[in-house]
Amino acid sequence: MTDFFRGIAPIRHEGPEATSEFAYRHYDPDEMVLGKRMEDHLRFAVAWWHSFAWPGTDPFGGQTFQRPWFGDTLADARMKADVAFELFEILGQPFFCFHDADIRPEGASFAETEANLMAIVDYIGQKMETSRTKLLWGTANLFSHRRFMAGAATNPDPEVFAWSAATVKSCMDATARLGGQNYVLWGGREGYETLLNTDLSREAEQAGRFLSMVVEYKHKIGFKGAILIEPKPQEPSKHQYDYDVATVYGFLKRFGLENEVKVNIEQGHAILAGHSFEHELALAASLGILGSIDMNRNDYQSGWDTDQFPDSVPEIARAYYEILRAGGFTTGGTNFDAKLRRQSLDPEDLVLAHVGAMDVCARALKAAAALLEDGRLEVARAARYAGWDAPENRAMLTSDLDAIHARVIAEGINPEPRSGRQERLENLWNRFV
Amino acid sequence: MTDFFRGIAPIRHEGPEATSEFAYRHYDPDEMVLGKRMEDHLRFAVAWWHSFAWPGTDPFGGQTFQRPWFGDTLADARMKADVAFELFEILGQPFFCFHDADIRPEGASFAETEANLMAIVDYIGQKMETSRTKLLWGTANLFSHRRFMAGAATNPDPEVFAWSAATVKSCMDATARLGGQNYVLWGGREGYETLLNTDLSREAEQAGRFLSMVVEYKHKIGFKGAILIEPKPQEPSKHQYDYDVATVYGFLKRFGLENEVKVNIEQGHAILAGHSFEHELALAASLGILGSIDMNRNDYQSGWDTDQFPDSVPEIARAYYEILRAGGFTTGGTNFDAKLRRQSLDPEDLVLAHVGAMDVCARALKAAAALLEDGRLEVARAARYAGWDAPENRAMLTSDLDAIHARVIAEGINPEPRSGRQERLENLWNRFV
Amino acid sequence: MTDFFRGIAPIRHEGPEATSEFAYRHYDPDEMVLGKRMEDHLRFAVAWWHSFAWPGTDPFGGQTFQRPWFGDTLADARMKADVAFELFEILGQPFFCFHDADIRPEGASFAETEANLMAIVDYIGQKMETSRTKLLWGTANLFSHRRFMAGAATNPDPEVFAWSAATVKSCMDATARLGGQNYVLWGGREGYETLLNTDLSREAEQAGRFLSMVVEYKHKIGFKGAILIEPKPQEPSKHQYDYDVATVYGFLKRFGLENEVKVNIEQGHAILAGHSFEHELALAASLGILGSIDMNRNDYQSGWDTDQFPDSVPEIARAYYEILRAGGFTTGGTNFDAKLRRQSLDPEDLVLAHVGAMDVCARALKAAAALLEDGRLEVARAARYAGWDAPENRAMLTSDLDAIHARVIAEGINPEPRSGRQERLENLWNRFV
Amino acid sequence: MTDFFRGIAPIRHEGPEATSEFAYRHYDPDEMVLGKRMEDHLRFAVAWWHSFAWPGTDPFGGQTFQRPWFGDTLADARMKADVAFELFEILGQPFFCFHDADIRPEGASFAETEANLMAIVDYIGQKMETSRTKLLWGTANLFSHRRFMAGAATNPDPEVFAWSAATVKSCMDATARLGGQNYVLWGGREGYETLLNTDLSREAEQAGRFLSMVVEYKHKIGFKGAILIEPKPQEPSKHQYDYDVATVYGFLKRFGLENEVKVNIEQGHAILAGHSFEHELALAASLGILGSIDMNRNDYQSGWDTDQFPDSVPEIARAYYEILRAGGFTTGGTNFDAKLRRQSLDPEDLVLAHVGAMDVCARALKAAAALLEDGRLEVARAARYAGWDAPENRAMLTSDLDAIHARVIAEGINPEPRSGRQERLENLWNRFV
Ligand SMILES: [Co+2]
Ligand SMILES: [Co+2]
Ligand SMILES: [Co+2]
Ligand SMILES: [Co+2]
Ligand SMILES: [Co+2]
Ligand SMILES: [Co+2]
Ligand SMILES: [Co+2]
Ligand SMILES: [Co+2]
Repeated sequence: MTDFFRGIAPIRHEGPEATSEFAYRHYDPDEMVLGKRMEDHLRFAVAWWHSFAWPGTDPFGGQTFQRPWFGDTLADARMKADVAFELFEILGQPFFCFHDADIRPEGASFAETEANLMAIVDYIGQKMETSRTKLLWGTANLFSHRRFMAGAATNPDPEVFAWSAATVKSCMDATARLGGQNYVLWGGREGYETLLNTDLSREAEQAGRFLSMVVEYKHKIGFKGAILIEPKPQEPSKHQYDYDVATVYGFLKRFGLENEVKVNIEQGHAILAGHSFEHELALAASLGILGSIDMNRNDYQSGWDTDQFPDSVPEIARAYYEILRAGGFTTGGTNFDAKLRRQSLDPEDLVLAHVGAMDVCARALKAAAALLEDGRLEVARAARYAGWDAPENRAMLTSDLDAIHARVIAEGINPEPRSGRQERLENLWNRFV
Repeated sequence: MTDFFRGIAPIRHEGPEATSEFAYRHYDPDEMVLGKRMEDHLRFAVAWWHSFAWPGTDPFGGQTFQRPWFGDTLADARMKADVAFELFEILGQPFFCFHDADIRPEGASFAETEANLMAIVDYIGQKMETSRTKLLWGTANLFSHRRFMAGAATNPDPEVFAWSAATVKSCMDATARLGGQNYVLWGGREGYETLLNTDLSREAEQAGRFLSMVVEYKHKIGFKGAILIEPKPQEPSKHQYDYDVATVYGFLKRFGLENEVKVNIEQGHAILAGHSFEHELALAASLGILGSIDMNRNDYQSGWDTDQFPDSVPEIARAYYEILRAGGFTTGGTNFDAKLRRQSLDPEDLVLAHVGAMDVCARALKAAAALLEDGRLEVARAARYAGWDAPENRAMLTSDLDAIHARVIAEGINPEPRSGRQERLENLWNRFV
Repeated sequence: MTDFFRGIAPIRHEGPEATSEFAYRHYDPDEMVLGKRMEDHLRFAVAWWHSFAWPGTDPFGGQTFQRPWFGDTLADARMKADVAFELFEILGQPFFCFHDADIRPEGASFAETEANLMAIVDYIGQKMETSRTKLLWGTANLFSHRRFMAGAATNPDPEVFAWSAATVKSCMDATARLGGQNYVLWGGREGYETLLNTDLSREAEQAGRFLSMVVEYKHKIGFKGAILIEPKPQEPSKHQYDYDVATVYGFLKRFGLENEVKVNIEQGHAILAGHSFEHELALAASLGILGSIDMNRNDYQSGWDTDQFPDSVPEIARAYYEILRAGGFTTGGTNFDAKLRRQSLDPEDLVLAHVGAMDVCARALKAAAALLEDGRLEVARAARYAGWDAPENRAMLTSDLDAIHARVIAEGINPEPRSGRQERLENLWNRFV
Repeated sequence: MTDFFRGIAPIRHEGPEATSEFAYRHYDPDEMVLGKRMEDHLRFAVAWWHSFAWPGTDPFGGQTFQRPWFGDTLADARMKADVAFELFEILGQPFFCFHDADIRPEGASFAETEANLMAIVDYIGQKMETSRTKLLWGTANLFSHRRFMAGAATNPDPEVFAWSAATVKSCMDATARLGGQNYVLWGGREGYETLLNTDLSREAEQAGRFLSMVVEYKHKIGFKGAILIEPKPQEPSKHQYDYDVATVYGFLKRFGLENEVKVNIEQGHAILAGHSFEHELALAASLGILGSIDMNRNDYQSGWDTDQFPDSVPEIARAYYEILRAGGFTTGGTNFDAKLRRQSLDPEDLVLAHVGAMDVCARALKAAAALLEDGRLEVARAARYAGWDAPENRAMLTSDLDAIHARVIAEGINPEPRSGRQERLENLWNRFV
């Protein structure tokens, strides 16, 4: 037991009238929502990197956090893990997520780095034996070290491709060993700084083959979790290949992987790509590739990824509504890929940022569930397309331009617009959030 | 002969030292560039809509242009065509483009509207017999009339789908009759204002089937031109389905149309989607779907489509460099989907906006060609990937994670970063523009 | 009594559990909030232009609305006024706003146009005698007609300056005659399309003198209302002079008008300028120039002014919190400068868009008031600056660099950062919204 | 002499046909432009921070550069200075700029830090005795260290205010000692992360008083250079107080400093604030506060400050045109606040990035000068406002609304729009770039 969170007791559900900051007002793991426990809907995860590894830097500022576990040794890494599991217990969190680089010190060679990883994976595995917190997903950090500056799978240097492939093998092994329910790939350096030195065709071939190898390895080792790609349009690169859900879908189709890989969608990345979060979720669901979510918002007045904890119930309700419509999570969950503001120095800030975010998500989930149960929104949506139920209309979808042209002439078709009722639907929505 | 352009003689190439505004300084149709006439590289087209039909409105302002042909009669439409061909002759333009709604008056019914269209198509056809200007592409306006307010192919109302299909048949017929080299679809209303009343899955099915019917009809009538989709992310809709090149590619793959349909890429739309123009061009080329371009810029400080004439040689050179690398246009060309600023009231403005834009494109093409001939940029690009030529490296692309992992360990691979030399390549570039 | 709203009864407060769409759930004019009636806090206004004059056009589409009063005659204008007052009564709205161009037909000359205006002002004045709805503000439309395409006060053509000055005189007269509580200037064309043809210095001089004449005329006629400028960064112009609150403040200081003119802040315009709504409100309050608000949101994924009805309680609560902190409105109010989506064709849409928006504002106001009464947020804010209460610290503000430097050395000052507690304050906030 | 640039000879002007990368093609310090040496127009400066101190980090990646002088000792700082002066000599650069934190190691206390600074200032001063490179400006880094995380002058903690004031005193002393021609303040942390914990009024008072003290100290020590504020809208903060030129002007007016302080305008910051670079320059010139420039571009598809070397002659020509129109630089100059891309690892990259940027600026300057000498653009601009020369029109600027209204009626004024000729002016422009 470290003393980092000294004096902070586990957070309990105390209801909306709770007086303490250290209470869940809305999140109650056992509350039933649409016939399922709230915890089993939301499947919250803490992100190891932002919560325990990020030092508070930004492009114009250095470290603001001073954590006792900051350092390069295995002992530091073990203390970090100790603190992590203490946070999981305080929050009652069912899941966590990690990159290899978050949990282990870098070594002088690949072999040493991998040995460090496996040592810490063992340590975490032991901690998990007495913890209720499971692994939602693991992933490899293929973007921070200078060797990845020009990409990982898409690097012009085949040695970096090799290093990356070997690293992903290690991380998939580690994820499988810890019972992870998904394996995620985020290609922060899979993109370019300038087209002038970039061969898009070669890099796409490299990326396609790399992902295929990941899928093959999954089957080889019998990993049952889902493989997920996390789209992001840009930052750190000028332009990234996994721009958004639609782009990833086209990539999967191109390489025949659309039934093997799904997406992990982050609100902040959706915004940066010019979409709303609910757009990306609804699109992924309609394409059959909705996997999991990173629940961290962007600031709408900032042009970069601010990775803030969610704070808007109406916005998040839109997201859970799409997730519930799609049937809810299977292997996926709600990962807080969210970092404290760099001025939020105290251990209490770390705990309460999660508490507030979980309450926002709980309210949003309940609102979305109530609206779905209410049913009026779905009735209104279906009614708008009801004309397509008529056989002569449905038949047009298996017809041809000539025949439809003839029908328009023959029947004197002249369509009359009908109200889209957007504001009325927004009013309906607002009764629930 | 109308008197709209009275006193404006045909524009001739007079070289960089020309003193008149009414001269081409750089555009010389017969100048040979990379073994081909400049005109045959650039394949310029005038857009009927912006040049002859747009009244100068904006969201906060009414009509500023007062053209003698503005009106709703066939006589007005004929005068508009007369003026159009006068502009083509003044510019010596090899191509034009049109929507149905640009060239004909709307009728009271589909049949009357179609009859109007065919009457004007005949009239234009006659004019083309004595003109050297050909049709680059035709298209249907499925976005301006209120019947399309909720979409055309993706409308919840099947009657609008029918109307749209019948209209596209007419427009493909008209395009074929006029010898058009392409047929374009821009889905300005194929998208949504709010997800609350939208069924993404149904609308995608409608859009996929609609496009398939277009392809089937092309083959049925023996149209030899290319079918092109013009991507745009948003505006007029909150969100459009043909967001960008990558999205269109995924859509084509989904419906098995990737060998039947290409893209018409507009600079302004690329910008709105968060890409550079050259990105969209290079991506389309690498995916094998580069068709044609709309050469009109956006203002970088405006969040909407300003459709301005191009004015930056370095930027446009980037575009033509990608086009030349991809082998140049086949059926495609350079369409000025550009409108005068609404304060540019005079006939001279219309002529000189095209003249200036053509000169910018000519300079850009020559710069791009010179750089390509120079060869150093492509040598530098290839050198960056040269490591992949080694057999043991190339073999990784048919290997697996286990084997590569073993190799990294065995060989102690530890990649050392090499400079990407971006600024040096930018310097090289700047020697040519 | 027209039959436009036939069958729609006045909207009443029925509480959150109301079952009808046609009810206020949260807006209750007589409910006391911080010791004042809710209606007197919010001071809602209907905007004549969007609600009655806008035909549903957008840059790519024509008219979608078909209103019986659309036309160019005085009879049309009277019918429009009749319908307007019917909406005011249905909503129980305390205020409305108008431009001259919304309420009167354009004439063939200035004199005829002004006569039309005064005829309709008389008609509206008569209607107001039997209505409880008052005029929040009047304004002149100096942007839609082609004569204003290059500006009004800042036009290079002095005749347009003259026309604009004469028009503002008429509109101030009309506003005064109707008992308006403010007079607003929005400079949609006071800006430029290109710097190449623009003289910033001259145009600033023209604008400064114009605004001074407005202030002088206000005093001359004894108008007691406030003069307000509505900032907007761009659109319709490429760049507008009244970019945002800070820019307007600098302009007022430059021409010595900072005690004569305040601002009317619109959420959508704040967003377009890269600010949050609450930023602009807080800044205006701190500068002493907060006047009134236009309560219409932008879509965060659109780069233009969407002028939508508000739908987010948490966002709007931030706005009212700043307004309440600043002491609430005096002459100002909450104007819905919001338009229906162009697919919302029905009279019911127009009514219910306002109803939903008013409920959102009512919830937001109550949340903001509760948080202000709670007091903890203001206590936290003040505590953060408490160090400045120490005399030796406060004294630094009247000291100099040398003395402070000496103090730092002498006392060995070495400041230790303290947590900014952002997430905890966001949690506190979320208990109220 | 270090060996960092071993083998790189001083760069000489060799003309456009030079074959080596290591040559100026367009920059020729002694070439006369508008009667002044090119070097005296452009007044180039190297920025110490990006060129020598930045390690290549970004928000998702660590250090990529491995410079022999990276370290925390005075010896490291001296080696850094040695390398810096070697670069200045290779480039023949007339100026450099620095922050305190770039040139000296941080100490354990203020006193130790200041002693370090002064030691290095002495060292640099000695180097300057044998160098032709002068100091364009100095500045204090009040944003990187964690003590500044909540602001410097605007910090809620008065101790940080004190530390900042003492630091600025040191830096002004250092700048004066080294003969600096300006002193710059960039307020990267003078802003906020959230309004919830921010008191805008207090922070503005602190900022106003701080700047006044800077001005007072300048006069006290007899520093003859200009005091400059560098505006930036956001990043690192969510929102910064010195948002843009207009905002800074309002701030200066508020505190009576508009004749004491000018602005240092950066292209990238102009873009982030929603302006063009030339807008900010033209506005500052028209307000009389144009001081100096940071010549580093943003990527138009990135929402953050990319600080790239300039590469577009037409864009930069717009900037120099405004500077020349305003009379050129007095104390100001062209500082490359530009960093290499983090993949540009080699010493050659650092040299050639500057060489290419200087050539771009030289071409742009010559183009702008030629256009200004040509005169047609200024003639066209003036002609557009020529109507104001008529006495009866000019008189309106000292008239009132009533009188102008009477004139409009009496004379039947009805203005007829005239073309703004934007495209023709763009064509004219393009003859020169
Ligand atoms: Co993120
Ligand atoms: Co994420
Ligand atoms: Co466009
Ligand atoms: Co286009
Ligand atoms: Co607006
Ligand atoms: Co407004
Ligand atoms: Co910068
Ligand atoms: Co700078």
